[in-house]
Amino acid sequence: MRYTPAGVAVAEFKIDHASRQIEAGQERQVGCELSAVALAQLAERVGGMVPGIRVRLTGFLARKSRMSLQLVLHVNNLEPI
Amino acid sequence: MRYTPAGVAVAEFKIDHASRQIEAGQERQVGCELSAVALAQLAERVGGMVPGIRVRLTGFLARKSRMSLQLVLHVNNLEPI
Repeated sequence: MRYTPAGVAVAEFKIDHASRQIEAGQERQVGCELSAVALAQLAERVGGMVPGIRVRLTGFLARKSRMSLQLVLHVNNLEPI
Repeated sequence: MRYTPAGVAVAEFKIDHASRQIEAGQERQVGCELSAVALAQLAERVGGMVPGIRVRLTGFLARKSRMSLQLVLHVNNLEPI
């Protein structure tokens, strides 16, 4: 975890997603790896978590930096499952 | 647009996403580029669309192929906005 110059906690982490989804009427197994970032109180919570824990995350995708094509999930909600 | 051996239409396309999101209580502008894929009737609809049209998409993310880290949005719903 790091802190911005303004003192806001920032947690950058990787998630390994797995779920079953419906596509064109057929169920399928889906997986992907995503970079994620959480700020402030959420970052503190992430910082206190054991790697490998199972969580459900919601948030939004944004490019990692202005010139990057890489995506980062900005986490707005996090719950253990 | 292409067709699978089973005759299912597949439309692969790029989306240029822009939205405003809330993160840690602050509104921010967000943008990213994403590869997307639509199947069957949705693919036919995509194939009939003019490039540059504004749409709202929902679906799920999956890795592009088994060994890839690249993400693709599998579109389950598409509406012009």
